[in-house]
Amino acid sequence: MRVSQLLAPTLREDPAEAEVVSHRLMLRAGFIRKAAAGVYTYLPLGYRVLQKIMNIIREEMNKAGGQELLLPIIQPAELWQQTGRWDVYGEEMFRLNDRHGRAFCLGPTHEEIITDLVKNEINSYKQLPLLLYQIQNKYRDEKRPRFGLMRGREFIMKDLYSFDKDEEGMKISYQKMYDAYSNVFRRCGLEFRAVEADPGAIGGGTSHEFMVLADSGEAVVVYCEKCDYAANREKACAKPDIYEKEEMQPLELVHTPEVRTIEEVAGFLQLSPKRLIKTLFYEADDRLICALIRGDREINEIKLKNTVGCLHLKLAADERVAAVVGAETGFVGPVGLEGIDIYADPEVAEMSNAVAGANKNGYHYLNVNPGRDFKVDMVVDLRLVQEGDSCPGCGTPLHATKGIEVGQVFQLGTKYSEAIGAKYHDEHGEERLMVMGCYGIGVSRTMAAAIEQNHDKDGIIWPVAIAPFHVVVIPVSTKEEEQVQVAEQLYQELLDAGIEVVIDDRADRAGVKFKDADLIGYPLRLTVGKRTIEEGTVDIKVRRTGEEMAVPVARVTETVRQLLQELSTS
Amino acid sequence: MRVSQLLAPTLREDPAEAEVVSHRLMLRAGFIRKAAAGVYTYLPLGYRVLQKIMNIIREEMNKAGGQELLLPIIQPAELWQQTGRWDVYGEEMFRLNDRHGRAFCLGPTHEEIITDLVKNEINSYKQLPLLLYQIQNKYRDEKRPRFGLMRGREFIMKDLYSFDKDEEGMKISYQKMYDAYSNVFRRCGLEFRAVEADPGAIGGGTSHEFMVLADSGEAVVVYCEKCDYAANREKACAKPDIYEKEEMQPLELVHTPEVRTIEEVAGFLQLSPKRLIKTLFYEADDRLICALIRGDREINEIKLKNTVGCLHLKLAADERVAAVVGAETGFVGPVGLEGIDIYADPEVAEMSNAVAGANKNGYHYLNVNPGRDFKVDMVVDLRLVQEGDSCPGCGTPLHATKGIEVGQVFQLGTKYSEAIGAKYHDEHGEERLMVMGCYGIGVSRTMAAAIEQNHDKDGIIWPVAIAPFHVVVIPVSTKEEEQVQVAEQLYQELLDAGIEVVIDDRADRAGVKFKDADLIGYPLRLTVGKRTIEEGTVDIKVRRTGEEMAVPVARVTETVRQLLQELSTS
Repeated sequence: MRVSQLLAPTLREDPAEAEVVSHRLMLRAGFIRKAAAGVYTYLPLGYRVLQKIMNIIREEMNKAGGQELLLPIIQPAELWQQTGRWDVYGEEMFRLNDRHGRAFCLGPTHEEIITDLVKNEINSYKQLPLLLYQIQNKYRDEKRPRFGLMRGREFIMKDLYSFDKDEEGMKISYQKMYDAYSNVFRRCGLEFRAVEADPGAIGGGTSHEFMVLADSGEAVVVYCEKCDYAANREKACAKPDIYEKEEMQPLELVHTPEVRTIEEVAGFLQLSPKRLIKTLFYEADDRLICALIRGDREINEIKLKNTVGCLHLKLAADERVAAVVGAETGFVGPVGLEGIDIYADPEVAEMSNAVAGANKNGYHYLNVNPGRDFKVDMVVDLRLVQEGDSCPGCGTPLHATKGIEVGQVFQLGTKYSEAIGAKYHDEHGEERLMVMGCYGIGVSRTMAAAIEQNHDKDGIIWPVAIAPFHVVVIPVSTKEEEQVQVAEQLYQELLDAGIEVVIDDRADRAGVKFKDADLIGYPLRLTVGKRTIEEGTVDIKVRRTGEEMAVPVARVTETVRQLLQELSTS
Repeated sequence: MRVSQLLAPTLREDPAEAEVVSHRLMLRAGFIRKAAAGVYTYLPLGYRVLQKIMNIIREEMNKAGGQELLLPIIQPAELWQQTGRWDVYGEEMFRLNDRHGRAFCLGPTHEEIITDLVKNEINSYKQLPLLLYQIQNKYRDEKRPRFGLMRGREFIMKDLYSFDKDEEGMKISYQKMYDAYSNVFRRCGLEFRAVEADPGAIGGGTSHEFMVLADSGEAVVVYCEKCDYAANREKACAKPDIYEKEEMQPLELVHTPEVRTIEEVAGFLQLSPKRLIKTLFYEADDRLICALIRGDREINEIKLKNTVGCLHLKLAADERVAAVVGAETGFVGPVGLEGIDIYADPEVAEMSNAVAGANKNGYHYLNVNPGRDFKVDMVVDLRLVQEGDSCPGCGTPLHATKGIEVGQVFQLGTKYSEAIGAKYHDEHGEERLMVMGCYGIGVSRTMAAAIEQNHDKDGIIWPVAIAPFHVVVIPVSTKEEEQVQVAEQLYQELLDAGIEVVIDDRADRAGVKFKDADLIGYPLRLTVGKRTIEEGTVDIKVRRTGEEMAVPVARVTETVRQLLQELSTS
């Protein structure tokens, strides 16, 4: 490819719209352009990267026994109504009516439609397991689309669905996909971690997320360096820190005027925040509930929501709490609560002589003892894990790092097969529900995550496997006929050798071309200049390391091949 | 691939919903399933065929200098309003609003968005020509989607857009695409013809359609066997058949009671229909106009519409005509018409002493002479060409055949660059409009057309280049261990040789497998049966010719390769 003909419009300035580095660099390097909020055009270089990622995914899915198909983007409302998700998705779903007034959505995911397909086509255990996947656009009408390809409204995904006879089969399919996903991200040249995750709205049980590690990541990954424990922070557990039981002292009401926060109360009473019970009221689908965690901990609302099993969970308004318990936030506590379910973290359930609000403005209780002074309806892990907390497996202090979620795998069980009625006949002719899994990779998001992980101040540093091209040949001066001739010769030689190469044949200054080469992030840059003509050598620069070397013209192809090989395996 | 694991649900019965053979066979062979009216899921075999077609297209587009990108499916209304097509498309366009109430459509085509992109990114003649393409879903909310993939509402297209400095450049790009399209369809193994076409709603000047020839085709292609003239019937011209001028006779009113049609009038007056003028009134965007063609011809309404340049054209209601001309249909004619533009076919304009309605119920005029008895506002070819008409190039009688449109190329000129403002600076620094072309291939439609052209009563007969797999190996009895073993060995051997092969390892009767093999249309079928064990030969059946041959086991791979080669080039 000749750069003079390539549509790769690079920008010198950072575009105002870009908030994260991948967005900024993809715009600047001419990989994408915005068509509308959260909707992008992939320009030729961007699309080449996408195709490489898609091909790696395809190969690994096929190797794992997946069959590729293509489901529709526009999906009739009826199936979504059958699983109840037509309502659940709310404003996040793009909806439209056809000319006859029939309702459709633009698929945000495809569980409904594929389960319906399999229900109609499969009826015997002999036809299972079945692993079906597709790669195509998905739609989510984000309230505030941002971060370029990281949170778009139209984005590319690979989604695979597994159908098995039973739980055991599902687990085998799940493991196959877990391994295939590991292969995909490894082959893409990315540093990643698979972590335990919360299944969220998709439902089902076990789930893992695949995180590309990057400082700019929105998600926090908690992991243990000793054992192999790793989890999304939303899902992560830590070993409860239970201190020794004390002899219970009598409950004591103390005046704590204008002392409301944990810090204020702890300071006022000269006690560690560990001795305090943090009392929080939530509205769980309009029902008021109470959650208790230790004073020095943060609550993990996702755990609470999953425990309660509600659709919507939010902190209760101060007024509502005050109306029910008779005190302002800051003085509320579990003692004497009636008709409100209390969920307590194990660390709270095991406390002795703790401090809690007294449900009376300006007062707290000392010597609160769970069980004696209030009844816990459910003891459940509600704690948001922090770096340094103890690993739930081995007790070692946990590490935390930031990551970008690029894939997630779910054990769905029979949630969708039950709603849609996807059954098969087993060996004895009995009808049974298929047991499902689903597995997604954000293809366009993986491209963005790769850049978040691989860049410097000058631009992108592509891993070889997903670089749009591997080599750029730059004649320093297009006015020097000899330079142009050698550059063209090398370009042709590399092309003939099957290497993905471009020649920057534009009549621009060398500085402009060097800047563009760094920005676009070709793994190798070949410079044909004065010295090439005088000494017969070409300068090869390795984008990732910055290393430069003079290589005799006759050995360029061989060296390029060797360097690409080294970069691919390092 | 093992058929036991392949999701290829074949049907014994013809599905009631299928109206055409490609639809019926794609359903029966398990290539597609309907998700909603005009919306399909492509099952694994169907998707393999699509991918093969897409790969051929990609290679030819790239070879012709095309760069692949990916434009959004959801497009903001604003750009469409800029070209006026937001209104033109009417109900055929799927429209939706996002959560903030902003209007979008699902792209039925991408001229607007790509012209806007190029406008923003290109500003110099040095960056032209530019050929950009994509392969992805398109949307058209057909009133009555039917014929399976032939007229769907969600379908796959390749669309390329060319941007040139001038008309001359556009013509070069056009020719490149014309050639690339010919290569695509030839490589797909299809019998096709490129014909002159009407540009329709896309606008612009020269246009060609690529027609896959098939008896079931909706379109009629007219072509000359002597010269290379070929055109869509809607666009086709024929040499006017002008008979010698006669001396003008005086206009004569004759009573023709209850004689209305051309045949009735001709019979009543004992004249050839060639002597009659057929007078038709149309509403062109509400304006009443009159079109004249010779009595023995049919009118081509598309030509009339293009001539008039209106948005909507339809035959005027009898009442409206009667109110204006004072006579019932059957007795209307051009003599004495006032305030109505008259468009006459050249054959009419040159008539002498013709017959026409007198605009008086029950009467016709004899000896009507255009020019003398009425004024023609425009002489223009309005005739619908028939088989046997004279070639406009060389006069030879024309042939007609049926075809399915699978691709169309257009010289757009500056229609879109002007509306969107896509300009560049030429060699002298002057701003000029880019000159565009656009070029589409219906990818999913090509799959359907291939089947319309290549099938028999038993199923599909795939051209090798786009067959989902090339070979099926069938062990006659899966209970005979030796047969299974040899079949598995052959399967492995063919796989290792890089041949696209499946093994039908299902525990079904051989008859079922043979029927499926014919239905799915693998080019070659290998049967491993009793004789294989006794004599060491395998039966190879060629799907296209029905030819069967016994081949020694040791020579199977070599023979398969040779047969595929022969089938590919024949």
